[in-house]
Amino acid sequence: MSAKLRGVIPPVVTPLTEDRRLDVASFERSINRMIEAGVDGLFFLGSSGEVVFSTDARREEILTEAVRITAGRVPVLAGVIDTQTSRVIEHIAMAERLGVDGVVATAPFYALGGPAEIERHFRALREATQLPIYAYDIPVCVHTKLPVSLLVRLGQDGVLDGVKDSSGDDVSFRFLALANKKAGSPLSLLTGHEVVVDGAYLAGADGSVPGLANIDPEGYVRQWRAFEAGDWEAVRTEQDRLAELMRITQVTTGAVGFGAGVGAFKAALMLLGVFESNQMPEPVAKLDGDNLEAIKQVLAEAGLL
Amino acid sequence: MSAKLRGVIPPVVTPLTEDRRLDVASFERSINRMIEAGVDGLFFLGSSGEVVFSTDARREEILTEAVRITAGRVPVLAGVIDTQTSRVIEHIAMAERLGVDGVVATAPFYALGGPAEIERHFRALREATQLPIYAYDIPVCVHTKLPVSLLVRLGQDGVLDGVKDSSGDDVSFRFLALANKKAGSPLSLLTGHEVVVDGAYLAGADGSVPGLANIDPEGYVRQWRAFEAGDWEAVRTEQDRLAELMRITQVTTGAVGFGAGVGAFKAALMLLGVFESNQMPEPVAKLDGDNLEAIKQVLAEAGLL
Amino acid sequence: MSAKLRGVIPPVVTPLTEDRRLDVASFERSINRMIEAGVDGLFFLGSSGEVVFSTDARREEILTEAVRITAGRVPVLAGVIDTQTSRVIEHIAMAERLGVDGVVATAPFYALGGPAEIERHFRALREATQLPIYAYDIPVCVHTKLPVSLLVRLGQDGVLDGVKDSSGDDVSFRFLALANKKAGSPLSLLTGHEVVVDGAYLAGADGSVPGLANIDPEGYVRQWRAFEAGDWEAVRTEQDRLAELMRITQVTTGAVGFGAGVGAFKAALMLLGVFESNQMPEPVAKLDGDNLEAIKQVLAEAGLL
Amino acid sequence: MSAKLRGVIPPVVTPLTEDRRLDVASFERSINRMIEAGVDGLFFLGSSGEVVFSTDARREEILTEAVRITAGRVPVLAGVIDTQTSRVIEHIAMAERLGVDGVVATAPFYALGGPAEIERHFRALREATQLPIYAYDIPVCVHTKLPVSLLVRLGQDGVLDGVKDSSGDDVSFRFLALANKKAGSPLSLLTGHEVVVDGAYLAGADGSVPGLANIDPEGYVRQWRAFEAGDWEAVRTEQDRLAELMRITQVTTGAVGFGAGVGAFKAALMLLGVFESNQMPEPVAKLDGDNLEAIKQVLAEAGLL
Repeated sequence: MSAKLRGVIPPVVTPLTEDRRLDVASFERSINRMIEAGVDGLFFLGSSGEVVFSTDARREEILTEAVRITAGRVPVLAGVIDTQTSRVIEHIAMAERLGVDGVVATAPFYALGGPAEIERHFRALREATQLPIYAYDIPVCVHTKLPVSLLVRLGQDGVLDGVKDSSGDDVSFRFLALANKKAGSPLSLLTGHEVVVDGAYLAGADGSVPGLANIDPEGYVRQWRAFEAGDWEAVRTEQDRLAELMRITQVTTGAVGFGAGVGAFKAALMLLGVFESNQMPEPVAKLDGDNLEAIKQVLAEAGLL
Repeated sequence: MSAKLRGVIPPVVTPLTEDRRLDVASFERSINRMIEAGVDGLFFLGSSGEVVFSTDARREEILTEAVRITAGRVPVLAGVIDTQTSRVIEHIAMAERLGVDGVVATAPFYALGGPAEIERHFRALREATQLPIYAYDIPVCVHTKLPVSLLVRLGQDGVLDGVKDSSGDDVSFRFLALANKKAGSPLSLLTGHEVVVDGAYLAGADGSVPGLANIDPEGYVRQWRAFEAGDWEAVRTEQDRLAELMRITQVTTGAVGFGAGVGAFKAALMLLGVFESNQMPEPVAKLDGDNLEAIKQVLAEAGLL
Repeated sequence: MSAKLRGVIPPVVTPLTEDRRLDVASFERSINRMIEAGVDGLFFLGSSGEVVFSTDARREEILTEAVRITAGRVPVLAGVIDTQTSRVIEHIAMAERLGVDGVVATAPFYALGGPAEIERHFRALREATQLPIYAYDIPVCVHTKLPVSLLVRLGQDGVLDGVKDSSGDDVSFRFLALANKKAGSPLSLLTGHEVVVDGAYLAGADGSVPGLANIDPEGYVRQWRAFEAGDWEAVRTEQDRLAELMRITQVTTGAVGFGAGVGAFKAALMLLGVFESNQMPEPVAKLDGDNLEAIKQVLAEAGLL
Repeated sequence: MSAKLRGVIPPVVTPLTEDRRLDVASFERSINRMIEAGVDGLFFLGSSGEVVFSTDARREEILTEAVRITAGRVPVLAGVIDTQTSRVIEHIAMAERLGVDGVVATAPFYALGGPAEIERHFRALREATQLPIYAYDIPVCVHTKLPVSLLVRLGQDGVLDGVKDSSGDDVSFRFLALANKKAGSPLSLLTGHEVVVDGAYLAGADGSVPGLANIDPEGYVRQWRAFEAGDWEAVRTEQDRLAELMRITQVTTGAVGFGAGVGAFKAALMLLGVFESNQMPEPVAKLDGDNLEAIKQVLAEAGLL
């Protein structure tokens, strides 16, 4: 991974058995399906990979299987998400030991801090590993927005190798892209917003980390290749189609947040025959009944069923 | 204005004299400059038009001059922004009497409400006027996000003619564009985010309402024409240039919010010779000293000075 | 009103007829009922007095009737709530002309600003009137918290005469009370949180502005007199009783925000025979059906029916 | 701990050596000082006990020493704070093994959820342990407010034994106290807001968890005893004194959040000779220079130096 990370790098959804063990067979099926579709990397233990629902033992199991199954076919990124520096460093040590190709870390959370704490945090992570480090900008979860100027400075200083942007702030992302370019493009910029990947490419993104690519990896790969070919009409047409598919997260009732979002991803993967079960980690209930029917309908309209 | 509103419709910045009267000469210069650059409409009394800083008498003066100066060359939209329904209806009555072509209204604010109140609000406005009504989605000011499904339903019911989106939520905007299209495109969708207009066009926007077009109207008009011609590379290149210019709102120190944003617009317009003064409405201080120098530098780099 | 404002000063709820005119007879009944119960002042056109739902003409009508009915028996405060300085100054001029004894103003809202704008705002109001000015700290509506140090400084400088605290932040209120005392108590400190008035008195409040006192003025007057007598057990017992009564705002379904809060106040006043109707200003629906029954039940349990 | 928890239960600040090991000698000094002052319990690994900065090994070390030093003189509560259910259950298992008397858990955080997830979470914790469970309501850290009705229901169902309220919402706390009493007082209600403990006692709190009690345990014990004796004037006078002392968290410059709050506690404990060092966990900088002088000044004014 000396080269800059580019392309489609799905955040891999974690399949569970009904009794909430890791479902290795489904995991393997899903990973292979994405690699065969042509993705450029895989990101395990992201927010939608249920990292914060997983014990350390489960995290180790997930990464172990991920590295084994991926088998070097594409780079493996690992989320090392935890509240504060010392805990994150432990996750990094484990990920490094298990052979991943890069780690993804958020700003510190739970305890209140400011920009100074964020900067010290990432610099401390850098001292703890040689692996590429990607900053994960996800204010909806950590309640802090990573400042553009800090990110670019950390890129120039060799602390960060890239940014996974799930900030929902396309204005800030544009300024980040411009500032990064001016600084010699030290950062690989990846967007996590699956329904506006086309806008992010237009703004200068180096790639995408779309959760929905677990469901339709081929769509995002086609979109990336159209972008590489400069065919913007194909990029946006594919995006419109994928945005329609994203309605699986909106057609259910009762569920909210992770339960509605990742819940719909798991349901769709089960309906597509990729996952054995759509079980969710405690304390989240899995979708069932009419909600499964509603998701099935969207999949059918998208031609996936 | 029976046809759907499309293209570049700048929200017009309001020039003040040093003693805070309306500077009619500067206003005329700025309006003519934008019309001559080829804009497709003008939006007066928007957030950046200092609507909430203006007394009713000042609002009347601004609209009177706006209609007189514009003289039918392009459609005139008027912000009718106030806290709750009855007050907004009074502003609509005035705007209608003064001859504007459409009005722009936000969700109710200050008092807390929910979706039911928002829906009753817009329906009550519809009963009060025959003018086209545009919903102004600006949660940073009113602290409510207009729901996609409500907007489309109000479009289908003939209550709303369009949406000016300043929500900062490109994911929601994409879903709005898709839902509007499915419903037969009753709404004209306009983006207010000047640095990501290209992404909004890609998502299906019918036009833009960029504050920065007060400074560089020709840039946004060129971008719109490139979009109409399907030349996406030109659209994005123009956008990158304009995003660089938007740094006038970021290079100052001390000012925040309206004072930093509209403050920079007024300073730039003064430096460009369009405005006589960069005076701000109370309680906001105008930019001066080093801040003016910093803005001048950005204008110079953009080739505008 | 040269003396410091102290005691119970209810924010007066505004009765409407079914067709949304000011119901003067009900207004008179309610005002007289509160004065006869022994309140120490009346605050018209507060948030619960539907100030932001009222046109300027309606505001003038309310204040005119308020001054006429009150007839000097207690001081009259008037809310002068609007978005920014110049608009607030117009409301102050009207209130002054109509003969009120003091005005209540919030931080600027809608447009974004910072502490500098808040300070300039209140200083500009001070230059516009000789009347006592009370700062209304209500972040849930204006989305800015007034800083303790600024309030005390403005008190010492003669800009502010007091603070009506509806911030929901009892920690900050305690620090305000301590800092005000150290500064020689320039500010009259009034709490707007009707269910924790006892805690505010303990913290050093000079009085209260409880919306619920429209329903049970005698309770809040008894509580104040117990506080003056140093009988804390009576203060808290009365508070617990009043907090139970406040459940009228919680036992309904469907309504939210202003519609649930002031909606319940109006419903209770109608059920008590003080108001003719519980009509609400557009765009808010009035409570009816089962919701009225639920409120009646709470009133009965409290011995008010 | 079959009896209900009552009184003063400080959240114990964790002393570090300069190289960030646990400073056991300082820890012992501080714990003994608080027990000798008469506190009714000790809460380890709370937010101010740097739980989210501590690795699992460090958490184990802290609890091991805490149980050893406390030696049964007062009950020991342990924070088991982590993102989601399965991780929290692991912390509970460790705490139970180490011999604590109760555990304190927040709502799930990082991943987005709703009331259903919160309820399932606490019920799952209840199935995992026989220990008393206290819900920690701290929206500033977890960005969810625990609903009153849910807390009381979980109390009635034997899921929760109490609530540590750090919500900053005294109105909600009053409703919680009333609802708990009506339900037969299943919950022990403890306030975490050190400057308004008097108001919480008035509202019906069973005790307090004041971080500032690390600095002045005797003050909070005196206050509790005055409350037990019904001497409200003494309760509030002590509170005013303690609120003045709390200014140690406000007189510094540069630090924010945890660094300003717990940073000031550690600095004060060092200045009082209780802690060897005021070292902070990464990524937080310790206070020094003028900031230490400012804190010393407050301590001197409070008569503690």
